[in-house]
Amino acid sequence: MVVGLVEKAVPAAKSTVSSAVKKPTSLSSDPIINVALGDPTIYEPYWKKMGDSYFCNAMNLCWFLLPELDNAIRTLHRVVGNAMVDDDRFIVVGNGSTQLFHALLYALSSPDLPEPINVVAAAPFYSSYPEETKFLQSKLYKWAGDANCYDKDEPYIEVVTSPNNPDGSIRGTVVNREGSKAIHDLAYYWPQYAPITSKADHDAMLFTFSKATGHAGTRIGWAIVKDKVIAAKMVKFIEVSSIGVSREAQLRAAKILGVIADDCRNPDHKGENLFQYGRRLMSERWGKLREVGMKSNGVFSLPKYPRDYCKFTGEYTDSNPAFAWLKSKEGLNCENLLRDKSKIITRGGPSFGVDSTYTRVSMLSRDVEFELLLERLAAIKGTVNGN
Amino acid sequence: MVVGLVEKAVPAAKSTVSSAVKKPTSLSSDPIINVALGDPTIYEPYWKKMGDSYFCNAMNLCWFLLPELDNAIRTLHRVVGNAMVDDDRFIVVGNGSTQLFHALLYALSSPDLPEPINVVAAAPFYSSYPEETKFLQSKLYKWAGDANCYDKDEPYIEVVTSPNNPDGSIRGTVVNREGSKAIHDLAYYWPQYAPITSKADHDAMLFTFSKATGHAGTRIGWAIVKDKVIAAKMVKFIEVSSIGVSREAQLRAAKILGVIADDCRNPDHKGENLFQYGRRLMSERWGKLREVGMKSNGVFSLPKYPRDYCKFTGEYTDSNPAFAWLKSKEGLNCENLLRDKSKIITRGGPSFGVDSTYTRVSMLSRDVEFELLLERLAAIKGTVNGN
Repeated sequence: MVVGLVEKAVPAAKSTVSSAVKKPTSLSSDPIINVALGDPTIYEPYWKKMGDSYFCNAMNLCWFLLPELDNAIRTLHRVVGNAMVDDDRFIVVGNGSTQLFHALLYALSSPDLPEPINVVAAAPFYSSYPEETKFLQSKLYKWAGDANCYDKDEPYIEVVTSPNNPDGSIRGTVVNREGSKAIHDLAYYWPQYAPITSKADHDAMLFTFSKATGHAGTRIGWAIVKDKVIAAKMVKFIEVSSIGVSREAQLRAAKILGVIADDCRNPDHKGENLFQYGRRLMSERWGKLREVGMKSNGVFSLPKYPRDYCKFTGEYTDSNPAFAWLKSKEGLNCENLLRDKSKIITRGGPSFGVDSTYTRVSMLSRDVEFELLLERLAAIKGTVNGN
Repeated sequence: MVVGLVEKAVPAAKSTVSSAVKKPTSLSSDPIINVALGDPTIYEPYWKKMGDSYFCNAMNLCWFLLPELDNAIRTLHRVVGNAMVDDDRFIVVGNGSTQLFHALLYALSSPDLPEPINVVAAAPFYSSYPEETKFLQSKLYKWAGDANCYDKDEPYIEVVTSPNNPDGSIRGTVVNREGSKAIHDLAYYWPQYAPITSKADHDAMLFTFSKATGHAGTRIGWAIVKDKVIAAKMVKFIEVSSIGVSREAQLRAAKILGVIADDCRNPDHKGENLFQYGRRLMSERWGKLREVGMKSNGVFSLPKYPRDYCKFTGEYTDSNPAFAWLKSKEGLNCENLLRDKSKIITRGGPSFGVDSTYTRVSMLSRDVEFELLLERLAAIKGTVNGN
């Protein structure tokens, strides 16, 4: 067996540490001593708390993932039915799904390619993807814009967000060439936002605690990955970026995801589970917003979504996206209009790769703010007509 | 005033959100509504817990830093006297100091330079710096090796670790040209490892919870930064990388740092505070290791450190570094020797930019492992002589 003392964990060291994590104090007569790293276990007696070290589960490919969180994630996906989480899928935890997006760019690119790999997404796309991709001016990958216009005969990664941010549409890849690579960002594929029509089963899928439960201050995201090599590269990325993910946040996320899953499965549950609660709220808000939209005399309009059968709720349900994607009359700048006429700050179409008749409005605000938003939007018609 | 709903926080949005964080429910008659972002505050009633959003302190430059942690960090540095933390210094929290190292590379580099800025450190240097610098093949910065050999007439960033990892030496910059930029990694500048001779007061200093207290699983590091522009760029980096730092980890770190500071200041404290405890342990271990080293008949030797007056303890103290920097006889490969003869895994000199007669041994293991290490090292002399 092996005794492990780790400083900054590296994959090469992982296998030698495994046994130490399992049996830190019972040493066989002739163990290997690993003092190559510097895991500060020396202070354990002071803190009277065994096992605070860099490693959460040295047996696992993702050695910084707490087993409790791994279990909670898989259980919740099984209960909700929104993603395939069979045992051969790898879960990689990150400091929010943002870090995992970076990790996937790294994992799907290759230092052997002569040019950076192109990263594309169909417009309107999440406004942070271009910035996140360009940020460090990596030679590994580069932002290449709207996937709908992509015509280069070069390797690429397509980022697919479904339901999409900003417009709530259900999406698949649009480029579809042989050997393509894709990142499926499923942050909003939960019953409060959209009907759960099937278990998503893509090569690399991203989820985030913040959009599922509202706990944005707990920086926990996870990837579900089919290919071990890709998962291992992601783990490497998170090692080099931040040496894993805080176990306090993982523990809290595990508890909360567990509570939600238990709630959903409890036949005696009297109240609503989180998804029922969220869906009711979102549905009410969307109803109110659509009413205001219809009375706006075309000043702004909203997308329509197909009703679909949700396997989680067992009924046909509407999409109630986390953002409303407003389109104003042609010739109007929707973001400026809302800001100047109504003191409503939104994010305009150009941030998402489309024209300025569009703007994105959060549907996840507090009640008092949302009601005020409705009031302002209802009043805007007169303002614009009187302009 | 402003009502703020934020998705991924961006500096531009920060000022409009501030008031919302202060007064989220009392709206004046004509507030600005910020629905540009998507902070999921909608679920607050369900969680019956106000204020879980991306923002910890929207009034602060580092908007994801919990005020409790900011206070705890400054208080502990004041109690220990190891760093200047006047109110004009900016604290930036990160997912471990590793993320802050990346953030500083970003903050100290410039997209306007024609070439990547050179990153150097005097050998032996921390073995992760080269990997962290090269990792994403950024066009902003590149690894340029041993600072002692740096002779290019180009901009550079010098990384200074003091006490140094791996060799425990107290260090300053070695290149010292006009307009130079430096990152001071002070992870080990705590009383258990070295005498605290003065308040460190560099432009950008890094500290990490894991080395100060041993809580490596809590991914919390912090930077103390003089220049607001640099601090703001670091905040931007952490936004784009991970949208901040989990508040659970920050809360726990704040509590623990607070306990330590209180312990240190308590005149009625009967036992040892963490630093006294740590220093006693480290001093005992170093005593034992030196004894083994002296009896090794020159098979390996250890660095000597000057005794110095520690202002924290009020006495002359020794350095007791977190790593032992072993040097074997000329012609021997120290890492291979320990591995092959004694089943001791260490990290050899070449990882740190020097020759293979050196190797690094963690001094922060559990007691049972450390005792075994001593036994093996004591036995090695016979093994080598009989070779």
